[in-house]
Amino acid sequence: MLDYGFFLDLAIILLMAKMFGILFRKLQLPQVAGILVAGLIIGPNVLGWVNETEFLLQMGELGVIMLMFTAGLETDLKELKNTGVASICIAGLGVIVPLIGGYLLYSLYMGGFAPIGSDGFLEAIFIGVIITATSVSITVETLREMGKLKGKIGTAILSAAIIDDIVGIILLTFVIGFKNPDSSGLAVIGNTLGFFVVALILGVIIHYIFKYVDHQDPHRRRLPIYGFAVCLLFAYIAEHFFGIADITGAYVAGIVLYNLSSSEYIVGKIDINSYMLFSPIFFTGIGLKTEITGFTLPVLLFTIGFVIIALLSKVLGCGFGAKLMGFNKLDSLKIGVGMMARGEVALIVAQKGLNAGLMNPTLFSAVIILVILSSIATPIILKSLYSKEESDIEIAISA
Amino acid sequence: MLDYGFFLDLAIILLMAKMFGILFRKLQLPQVAGILVAGLIIGPNVLGWVNETEFLLQMGELGVIMLMFTAGLETDLKELKNTGVASICIAGLGVIVPLIGGYLLYSLYMGGFAPIGSDGFLEAIFIGVIITATSVSITVETLREMGKLKGKIGTAILSAAIIDDIVGIILLTFVIGFKNPDSSGLAVIGNTLGFFVVALILGVIIHYIFKYVDHQDPHRRRLPIYGFAVCLLFAYIAEHFFGIADITGAYVAGIVLYNLSSSEYIVGKIDINSYMLFSPIFFTGIGLKTEITGFTLPVLLFTIGFVIIALLSKVLGCGFGAKLMGFNKLDSLKIGVGMMARGEVALIVAQKGLNAGLMNPTLFSAVIILVILSSIATPIILKSLYSKEESDIEIAISA
Repeated sequence: MLDYGFFLDLAIILLMAKMFGILFRKLQLPQVAGILVAGLIIGPNVLGWVNETEFLLQMGELGVIMLMFTAGLETDLKELKNTGVASICIAGLGVIVPLIGGYLLYSLYMGGFAPIGSDGFLEAIFIGVIITATSVSITVETLREMGKLKGKIGTAILSAAIIDDIVGIILLTFVIGFKNPDSSGLAVIGNTLGFFVVALILGVIIHYIFKYVDHQDPHRRRLPIYGFAVCLLFAYIAEHFFGIADITGAYVAGIVLYNLSSSEYIVGKIDINSYMLFSPIFFTGIGLKTEITGFTLPVLLFTIGFVIIALLSKVLGCGFGAKLMGFNKLDSLKIGVGMMARGEVALIVAQKGLNAGLMNPTLFSAVIILVILSSIATPIILKSLYSKEESDIEIAISA
Repeated sequence: MLDYGFFLDLAIILLMAKMFGILFRKLQLPQVAGILVAGLIIGPNVLGWVNETEFLLQMGELGVIMLMFTAGLETDLKELKNTGVASICIAGLGVIVPLIGGYLLYSLYMGGFAPIGSDGFLEAIFIGVIITATSVSITVETLREMGKLKGKIGTAILSAAIIDDIVGIILLTFVIGFKNPDSSGLAVIGNTLGFFVVALILGVIIHYIFKYVDHQDPHRRRLPIYGFAVCLLFAYIAEHFFGIADITGAYVAGIVLYNLSSSEYIVGKIDINSYMLFSPIFFTGIGLKTEITGFTLPVLLFTIGFVIIALLSKVLGCGFGAKLMGFNKLDSLKIGVGMMARGEVALIVAQKGLNAGLMNPTLFSAVIILVILSSIATPIILKSLYSKEESDIEIAISA
């Protein structure tokens, strides 16, 4: 006999996640932060209405691979080729500086540098990995509102954000691989390369099969269904045969199916599954798991340092990269600020690290606070930078 | 650490279900039958690639309540009021005759009548309950193709099909209630009435809340999300507080939300979730569970009798009902044949009975065969009845 308690769990999760999501959006905050808070409230920290179950974990895992699959499907590799060197430089420095910043902060928090290859070293690197991936959705919204999305700055930000997602996933794959006590450094590199080789071969075959099916019957239900099956298969292969994070597999599966005439159609269908059920389960699941009891003074200090370093390191790294590529000072600053926000991917990476034992659950709240604060700060600063420019122009004209 | 085997299970289920679904449709057979066969093949009966797990059961259960929820959402109570007495008479006789037919067949199969109220009695009634609910989708397709859907006959069939769904669900609710060894007859009736009273009160409140939200923000994501949460809540309340099947709760939740301006929008979103993931899991799950090893001579004879009685009893019951209501002979026959096909609901009811111990798993294949055969026979007979009429008219004209 089935225990029907999971119906109640799901009903509570959906209702609370949506209500808090809407509330947060009304407060000009990202919905996802509202959903995290809903998870905190319904979980053992506050009300205790919903507890983590195997079923919720599995549903949440499906949610996260859906998110990464659609992220892969929307990764425009062609645009990357066009924008080329500039975005690579912006993204590259925007990854390296936060990575080093996170590493230094955690070493400071732990009271010293851990020897290279030790668990402490990996944990320190991991704090850096969490803050590598930008969330551009808020920047995109802000630039679109001001009609600046299609310009040089918007394009640079978008392309650089794609690159730092890819780099972030690769870094995560390596760090989790090295964390596994059974694996030597060589094995991790071998496994990771092995996965990408297998994914490339399978990917090319699958891409052409899909292209054929897509051509025969475009926009039919079978495409998103087969597509999601491929995503599940890649996620499984990654975990089972190569010890690599399932989200890496899902992301690569998305890239495999990118650029079909039905790619957007597939994204649309997966998206509906995601927002109707799976993604609320994943993000409230993070809230269920976060321990807000261990908020000691060192954790508080770490959190403050973490937020400051995450924001500053992106602005400096990307801004400097843009300056190197010939953008003027103000435009470089705009690009840096535009890359500053963190969102879903930071949470997903942190969650993966939590499961892999790379991160103390008490530090998780720092990531949540970063997501909330960076989402508030980014549009405000971005708008003021643009209005500064306009008032400068007005002064120049009236002078 | 999560076991990632469920990714592989889901990938196999989605790929095989869709491929067999498409294959069956190409053979002019219902897709759902193909999905059942896919389940038989990947399950322990044949290949043994996928075994039933707690996770798959829970996902399948979500699938079935989604199906019943959308069925409820599409139950047009207004149309029922308009067509009135005729459909009630057609549906009523179309329920009673199969119910008695199933009861008699099972008693014959067991070698005698079980005493009223005993388990054997309930099992016999249950065989009747399985064949009460018509699946009109094939009839609708056939009539639409011939341009006859909007006529008197089409309307009568559609309305009667709605009624026999409702009656089928109520009968199922009672039979499962009586099966519970802890409950007396009075308690079952009390519980069932209790649920409907609570559902009515909650339903009116929820209906008006939704009408308000719908009016403020029509066609927004929140509506299907809240709607599905209500469905989960009703399913939970039905099972947990009243010992009533979760699908009854889900169906009633659908009726509660029917007739909003966003009802169709909600159906659309739930539908995508359903066909992308949950409904393939549910229907392959039936295939996983069906035992094809126990196919002895008595089971074979039962199956033959079951299919014949299921088809004939509907044609006779509904046809006689139509005749009583003043339809001519040929039109009555068309209505009877139009109500003959069985589909998802018969499978869902049988599955519920299986879980409740009301049905021997070896008999399940009879239901599958009924679904397949009735789906083949219905359009063929229906078309020949219509062409007979036309050739009669032609003869009359040329005469």
